[in-house]
Amino acid sequence: MYRYKITIAYDGTNFAGFQKQPKQRTVEETLERAVNKIAKKPVKLIKVYGSGRTDAGVHALGQVVHFDIPFNLAETAMLHALNSILPLDVVVLRAEHVTSEFHARYGTAGKRYQYRLALGEFVDPFKRNYTGHWKFPLDLKLIQRALPDLIGKHDFTSFCASGGHTKTNIREIYEATAVFDEKQNEIVFEFYGSGFLYNMVRIIVAVLIEIGSERRPVHDISRIIEAKNRDEARGTAPASGLYLKKVYYPENFGK
Amino acid sequence: MYRYKITIAYDGTNFAGFQKQPKQRTVEETLERAVNKIAKKPVKLIKVYGSGRTDAGVHALGQVVHFDIPFNLAETAMLHALNSILPLDVVVLRAEHVTSEFHARYGTAGKRYQYRLALGEFVDPFKRNYTGHWKFPLDLKLIQRALPDLIGKHDFTSFCASGGHTKTNIREIYEATAVFDEKQNEIVFEFYGSGFLYNMVRIIVAVLIEIGSERRPVHDISRIIEAKNRDEARGTAPASGLYLKKVYYPENFGK
Repeated sequence: MYRYKITIAYDGTNFAGFQKQPKQRTVEETLERAVNKIAKKPVKLIKVYGSGRTDAGVHALGQVVHFDIPFNLAETAMLHALNSILPLDVVVLRAEHVTSEFHARYGTAGKRYQYRLALGEFVDPFKRNYTGHWKFPLDLKLIQRALPDLIGKHDFTSFCASGGHTKTNIREIYEATAVFDEKQNEIVFEFYGSGFLYNMVRIIVAVLIEIGSERRPVHDISRIIEAKNRDEARGTAPASGLYLKKVYYPENFGK
Repeated sequence: MYRYKITIAYDGTNFAGFQKQPKQRTVEETLERAVNKIAKKPVKLIKVYGSGRTDAGVHALGQVVHFDIPFNLAETAMLHALNSILPLDVVVLRAEHVTSEFHARYGTAGKRYQYRLALGEFVDPFKRNYTGHWKFPLDLKLIQRALPDLIGKHDFTSFCASGGHTKTNIREIYEATAVFDEKQNEIVFEFYGSGFLYNMVRIIVAVLIEIGSERRPVHDISRIIEAKNRDEARGTAPASGLYLKKVYYPENFGK
């Protein structure tokens, strides 16, 4: 068998998320269909493995997936074959040969998420599926002062929606930033960490919006983390603003 | 009766165009529903009048519409009332009181269209509904040399799809530009003229792409105009790249 690592982007608007579900259009199912077609498998014998799930409406700029096919195809041939089959809301950006050491999910060393929050009184019709929206005043300086409280290794139980099932809720955040994109009138958040719990980024953004609008004290995040109680962090920012930007692997892993 | 001029933007992706059609979701129908709700009319008594139609999938950044309601509402109240009712793919940017002199369709002095053509090998999944796409080499300099041939008053019969019904096919183009947006990797065309025939901008863009890829001589547009024959201008660029950017009225018209 020959293993491929592919890096993909998708518009999550018309997908019921990454993970396969009966009678739903998902990214995983869409990819498996394409891969099995290339491998000329009449039934879906070949499975694809993503770095992790994304929810319905969440986008990806650099999701990583691996799969095995029984014959060797050049990397560019695989890239073009997949893109000629896939629907227009998923695109393969890169296809690479990897060894059977490589595993898209179990091998991850970190992930980077972006959240785009559009400001302004009304939702821009061209952004409704691609940003969150906040129409009230927001003090970016307060948000920027709160961000360092996220950095480091913490038990993020308070920032985890029910429905996740992981051994531990401890994750490490390496970087958390928020910048104002004046041209777009958006606040663009980025979070880079070892991994993220179910809905964690969206819950963090919801709390940061509350801090930026003076509904919470600026250093409330440390208290919320300490509480280890989901009820402390109300709200979840909409899926439409969230992008899985990059998945990291240890250098040379599976090469 | 009190007449309102509204300027709206819409994402055309999920509309079967501007004009009402049985059993289709259209911009006109969507607006009429909102206006009649505000006017508290149980049946749809109030009609709305757009500056002109846009096709299925075509977007608007500044479409203009007028309507009359039987009571007076402040401009900002009308703006907020409409936006609170309308679905998120249409937004009212401005609402103005105008006299009964003003007519959104018959009073137009000109229109400005934009066409966004994405380059690059694959369609960006986030642009599939918002740009046209061309994956082959394109020489912008050739396109820019061809554009002046469009300027002036011409019979644009060769650039008019069947299905239009206008008294004359003579239109005047005041401005035609094409610039490269490096950040987006797109060619952005703009056309400003007295008016445009059915599919005219999309047919012009298709011809310009052929010129830019050396499939036609650089000054073929003059010959095509002269021919007054739709068969001379093959092709129609996809609706997804087209934006009605601005509608012009004589200054003080209806004020």
